[in-house]
Amino acid sequence: MTAQLQLGFIGLGVMGRPMALNLMQAGYSMAVYARRKESLAPLIATGARAFAAPAALAAECDVIFTIVTASADSEQVALGMQGIAEGARAGTIVVDMATISPLATRRIAQALEARGVDHLDAPVSGGPMGAQGATLSIMVGGKPRVFERVKPLFERLGKTILHMGDHGAGQVTKACNQLALTVTLQAVAEALLLAQRCGVDPAKVREVMLGGIAASRVLELFGKRMVERDFENGIDARLYHKDLNIALDLAHSLGIPAPAAAATLQQINALIGSGGGKSDFSRMIEVLERAARSN
Amino acid sequence: MTAQLQLGFIGLGVMGRPMALNLMQAGYSMAVYARRKESLAPLIATGARAFAAPAALAAECDVIFTIVTASADSEQVALGMQGIAEGARAGTIVVDMATISPLATRRIAQALEARGVDHLDAPVSGGPMGAQGATLSIMVGGKPRVFERVKPLFERLGKTILHMGDHGAGQVTKACNQLALTVTLQAVAEALLLAQRCGVDPAKVREVMLGGIAASRVLELFGKRMVERDFENGIDARLYHKDLNIALDLAHSLGIPAPAAAATLQQINALIGSGGGKSDFSRMIEVLERAARSN
Repeated sequence: MTAQLQLGFIGLGVMGRPMALNLMQAGYSMAVYARRKESLAPLIATGARAFAAPAALAAECDVIFTIVTASADSEQVALGMQGIAEGARAGTIVVDMATISPLATRRIAQALEARGVDHLDAPVSGGPMGAQGATLSIMVGGKPRVFERVKPLFERLGKTILHMGDHGAGQVTKACNQLALTVTLQAVAEALLLAQRCGVDPAKVREVMLGGIAASRVLELFGKRMVERDFENGIDARLYHKDLNIALDLAHSLGIPAPAAAATLQQINALIGSGGGKSDFSRMIEVLERAARSN
Repeated sequence: MTAQLQLGFIGLGVMGRPMALNLMQAGYSMAVYARRKESLAPLIATGARAFAAPAALAAECDVIFTIVTASADSEQVALGMQGIAEGARAGTIVVDMATISPLATRRIAQALEARGVDHLDAPVSGGPMGAQGATLSIMVGGKPRVFERVKPLFERLGKTILHMGDHGAGQVTKACNQLALTVTLQAVAEALLLAQRCGVDPAKVREVMLGGIAASRVLELFGKRMVERDFENGIDARLYHKDLNIALDLAHSLGIPAPAAAATLQQINALIGSGGGKSDFSRMIEVLERAARSN
């Protein structure tokens, strides 16, 4: 692919905006659409052309990236009224970088392919920092031929780019990752609370644990915030709620047990129910603390 | 402390034997006791003196290490008939390196101190390899003054030696560590099974996860064995069962919730109930697989 390609970007939030800018910096011409008009300004200022609907944008693009919040949003943007499918030419590639259900992904891919439009699912990890620095991990599902065509663009967005399998395989990988991550956080919260209530310094216990087999990146990052009770900066708990729901829906649809993930989802529900959805995910330890106090 | 000290070692299994040998190699005179007489031979061959009961051994020792299996065994060796308390002089130090209940530890320490005998709890992590190579992590609870006296001996046994607090603090630290470790393993098992049943290569998903926030030592070590289905070498699942029971007993006694740990204990129960207690802990993934198949 060359810089002559016309790219489109739909969804210009904390992830989409820096990603679109990174592609523009590489010389690509960019068409943009966002539901919230105020998101468009920084892109237009940099030379992007704004469109009134995904269909109109799609009619002029070779590759269209989407990164909107949830499964329903991705389906709406791709297949809904004035959606991509209504405008896209045959041969266009749609790359969905949001974290959504693998089942929804397969539905979208199938519907688009019936119209001659190719589709990749390409959820990312690395957060806003990774998006800004183009150091994201990108987990891709879809046809190898399509993956190879988009790869040079992915390389402008991330550092680790992996083709995981057919449609949905990227989303499955992300779901597994988020399941392991959330349950590991619950493990860390339970361990650090136990230490504290037994009168042993959780900061010191964390240090010991980091030196052995119980070490994890979650203990490093979120465990530190738990110990320091720094719940206001970081990654919103509600995002993990969405992602773990995706993983458990998938597990249930296939009859796969996931008991620790199910217990963890209950805890995230409690955190969000008590108003902690926009706090950092490390605040999960407070759910345990509240249950402990009421005993 | 100098090499003139008379040391004692009680419990000469896969952990105790190499630890006693490391102390002897440092020049210390060693008295030994083991319930299974065949465990004594390699120590006697190296110059240790065997005793018929803990009391008789204790009468001649300045510092006595114990590393027997469970809480009841530690209590029996310290306080039971012909136990350490019956023979030890005032000023003797008992160092319990087994992983047992912090509550039992405090009972033992109190009973010994009433007789003028000092006590440290000093559970370890690092397994038989760490015992052989003297690279254990040692988590110590007890009086700072006693800790300082034993520290030069600990340095012959391990690499990371940490004083965590008063009596029981070493055991609390180990319990927290094992809680985090076992729940993280459950997280990894659930994630890798989900990947596999969704048709995405678990080995590839593990690689992706190792590159991000879901990375853990458990994913590295046990996750590899899950992917390779190598369940016969490694660390017996029944040891984690014992340790997680200790952590949950402690949590229950203090009214602390630990929902993911509780779910994980059920899974370990199922593994042991189906004959997997002496398999490597990574075999936990089979408990999920069996439940999935029967759906």
